Amino acid sequence: MGELTLADLAKQCDCVVQGDSSTLVRHVATIQAAQPGSISFLANSKYKKFLSKTLASAVIIHPDLKDECSVPALLHPNPYVTYAKVAALLFPVTLSGCGVHPSAVVSDSATISASAQICANSFIGEHVTIGDHVYIGPNCVVEEGCSIGENTHLLANVSLRPGTIIGLRGIIHPGAVLGADGFGIAMDAGQWLKIPQLGRVVLGDDVEVGANTTIDRGAIDDTVINNGVKLDNQIQIAHNVEIGEHTAIAGCTAVAGSTKIGAYCTIAGAVGIVGHLTIADKVHVTAMTLVTKSITKSGSYSSGTPMLPTEDWHKSAVRFKQLDALARKVARLFKKQLL
Amino acid sequence: MGELTLADLAKQCDCVVQGDSSTLVRHVATIQAAQPGSISFLANSKYKKFLSKTLASAVIIHPDLKDECSVPALLHPNPYVTYAKVAALLFPVTLSGCGVHPSAVVSDSATISASAQICANSFIGEHVTIGDHVYIGPNCVVEEGCSIGENTHLLANVSLRPGTIIGLRGIIHPGAVLGADGFGIAMDAGQWLKIPQLGRVVLGDDVEVGANTTIDRGAIDDTVINNGVKLDNQIQIAHNVEIGEHTAIAGCTAVAGSTKIGAYCTIAGAVGIVGHLTIADKVHVTAMTLVTKSITKSGSYSSGTPMLPTEDWHKSAVRFKQLDALARKVARLFKKQLL
Amino acid sequence: MGELTLADLAKQCDCVVQGDSSTLVRHVATIQAAQPGSISFLANSKYKKFLSKTLASAVIIHPDLKDECSVPALLHPNPYVTYAKVAALLFPVTLSGCGVHPSAVVSDSATISASAQICANSFIGEHVTIGDHVYIGPNCVVEEGCSIGENTHLLANVSLRPGTIIGLRGIIHPGAVLGADGFGIAMDAGQWLKIPQLGRVVLGDDVEVGANTTIDRGAIDDTVINNGVKLDNQIQIAHNVEIGEHTAIAGCTAVAGSTKIGAYCTIAGAVGIVGHLTIADKVHVTAMTLVTKSITKSGSYSSGTPMLPTEDWHKSAVRFKQLDALARKVARLFKKQLL
Repeated sequence: MGELTLADLAKQCDCVVQGDSSTLVRHVATIQAAQPGSISFLANSKYKKFLSKTLASAVIIHPDLKDECSVPALLHPNPYVTYAKVAALLFPVTLSGCGVHPSAVVSDSATISASAQICANSFIGEHVTIGDHVYIGPNCVVEEGCSIGENTHLLANVSLRPGTIIGLRGIIHPGAVLGADGFGIAMDAGQWLKIPQLGRVVLGDDVEVGANTTIDRGAIDDTVINNGVKLDNQIQIAHNVEIGEHTAIAGCTAVAGSTKIGAYCTIAGAVGIVGHLTIADKVHVTAMTLVTKSITKSGSYSSGTPMLPTEDWHKSAVRFKQLDALARKVARLFKKQLL
Repeated sequence: MGELTLADLAKQCDCVVQGDSSTLVRHVATIQAAQPGSISFLANSKYKKFLSKTLASAVIIHPDLKDECSVPALLHPNPYVTYAKVAALLFPVTLSGCGVHPSAVVSDSATISASAQICANSFIGEHVTIGDHVYIGPNCVVEEGCSIGENTHLLANVSLRPGTIIGLRGIIHPGAVLGADGFGIAMDAGQWLKIPQLGRVVLGDDVEVGANTTIDRGAIDDTVINNGVKLDNQIQIAHNVEIGEHTAIAGCTAVAGSTKIGAYCTIAGAVGIVGHLTIADKVHVTAMTLVTKSITKSGSYSSGTPMLPTEDWHKSAVRFKQLDALARKVARLFKKQLL
Repeated sequence: MGELTLADLAKQCDCVVQGDSSTLVRHVATIQAAQPGSISFLANSKYKKFLSKTLASAVIIHPDLKDECSVPALLHPNPYVTYAKVAALLFPVTLSGCGVHPSAVVSDSATISASAQICANSFIGEHVTIGDHVYIGPNCVVEEGCSIGENTHLLANVSLRPGTIIGLRGIIHPGAVLGADGFGIAMDAGQWLKIPQLGRVVLGDDVEVGANTTIDRGAIDDTVINNGVKLDNQIQIAHNVEIGEHTAIAGCTAVAGSTKIGAYCTIAGAVGIVGHLTIADKVHVTAMTLVTKSITKSGSYSSGTPMLPTEDWHKSAVRFKQLDALARKVARLFKKQLL
């Protein structure tokens, strides 16, 4: 945790200072909970009423609000993005050291940068390559032939199965599993036969993978997560999926095998996407939708029914079963009325 | 595994004994599968028919059934709760010892009670505080600044990210991840910018967290799980969620960011709750419902459609797409009929 | 990675060779991406057009296509199954060695076959039995009294809670948790009382469990996964579920407590199955269906609504709420028309 002046922050975040630019800030807070020493921000006009009363030492606001602000301020058209940058400056993520902890088990054939840190009880397999400033947290498993690019962080208890490739500046949260076998089985004389899963998982640069998310290796070709993709927790990405650049997917969503998702998509939480589909760029899918067809046009897509009190819901649900009969009745009435 | 008399059990569970109070029991069983030495219970009248034939040495029943029972019995108005207490007495959870296993890696600055047990290959970071009779199972990771209250058990492969706070008597099942970063990103010039996640996860007393469940740290303020909350497996709790006392949530449910759930709610499995909502106390949500609005009144809520044979479902599904047109047609007919 | 002739492969996979049976193959590829040295296959007639242009050294095809194929071929009525067998021969899964890694912690009372391999940083508890050719990957936890049958592989970071039984030739993927407590709680004077979970998890032979899947131990009796069951990633199987032989379940599906699923079922992804149901043999459930009733007949079952552009969906969703009123209106019109 550092302490910075508004002048420093303004320079690094490309803002204008209003008021005393030597004001020191050392922590962040919501505008309601801010205390002296805090820097806060106003990204939602709903909270504007707190601006006059805040105890924050400084706030980050849109230039349009500068006259309503009595405390020192950083002015920027995107206060939320500026907040993110300020918070990252105040709370930089740093490695606690470098080198291999004595309890870690590292294969002789692994190539590990001197600036990387391998924490307690981790395992690094044969022919693994670990780049500069990589952090491998406690109890991670990085199996044979994996390659981890510079500045990537694997947090605790991550599992990388053999051959997984991660680009630069990745963040892999605890419990994530990359490169487990895809679910490939074929029925053969009354038994499921396993299809060997011989592809890899390949992540581009700046990819974030949430806690307990799973990304399966490809069956023959690779599963590919392109640059800038952000995956929340508990997501399941099946074999041979490809996700386009800068697509963000919220928690608990499942993508079935061989589906290709475009760039700059935003997929909400608990969505299901069936296999072998193609989703265009800039598609938004709302929470808990089941995507059963390819989507060729950018836009927002949904399925499901609205929430109701269970008693009311039950009445609609019963009628849902009868919908076809109901529609046929209406058609008969229409015909009779010559409408 | 112990062996206890009905007299002992009755005293500790506040029951009345019917029959020979010196009867010894040493295991539990369903009423159908019970053997001599078993104690069983009858909580569901559906199973009453087995009461006359059971081989159990004793049963736990409602006093109303005492005349229908020929084996020794514990009488209590809530046989299921009594069963739970009896089973806990027969099979107490005990630590296998105390102290730090030599393969565990413990930071010098950690404070660990002499009565705590730290198992093989676990990692305890800087400035961690571990209370009396805490159990940290094999391969757990407890990162910097965490605090774990008395009698809390972390089972295998649990990950606690820095600063996580757990109260008294908690149980954290294998693979759970507490304190991973919330999914906070903002679009900045065509790239996702990470919002630093600076809050913590704070669990009250008597909280149970299921296997592979994830609870993200807050963005600025904390994610708060209050006393007595019970979370099943594979649940995702996003940043800044607050869950009220004694709320129970079944497996695979996802709660998005900043939602506040009241006390004594029961949320079924695979439910989705979108972000920034407020759910009142004593709300029940049925399985796989998507909650998209705040709920201000206690009661039961649902969404979705009933299951049908796929062929029948398909007919209704097609009509669902045409529902608005159908409703408009009916409105026209009504108008014409002057109904 | 080996190199085999078509003659070798044909003998082991019960195929007929067309063309030069001394042709050597050493890797597998899709028919489009194949290179010299590759063997490919054609299981989907959609890809037939690539057959004449493929660079593969050999292909696996249905005998009906033999005249359309100019490269050496293996002929078999089920090319996909044959591909699986060929791929397994070219890329056999082998243990890298045997014995216990010095960093693993193994209890004195465990019985471990000399041909088993226990990898780095794993933990093997008291009275565990590990059969011949078992592989326990890095950072696994196998707690007291577990038994693991011959040729079973536990990959990285797997957790087996006490008493878990696994049969022969199982594969347990990273992050899976078997034998965690079922979600058993009872309300007692305003607090949840934990019901001790005293049963086990018992897996038959040839069971595959996906990454981060959880299977809870039974409350009194066991949770039972029968021979040949295949579970994908992120599945939740609650206490006392029983799954019949050769049933396959796709990712993110949740099965609630005490439900019995038949044999040879195929359950798609993100399905929810509520508790205490019975599902017949050979039932198929489509993606994201909620199964709320027992299914007594083989067949396919579904719930949910089709995906639409959000704007269109919203119109239908609003009408869903009014369905009962709409149906009543139509009934009145019908009556009036004496239809």
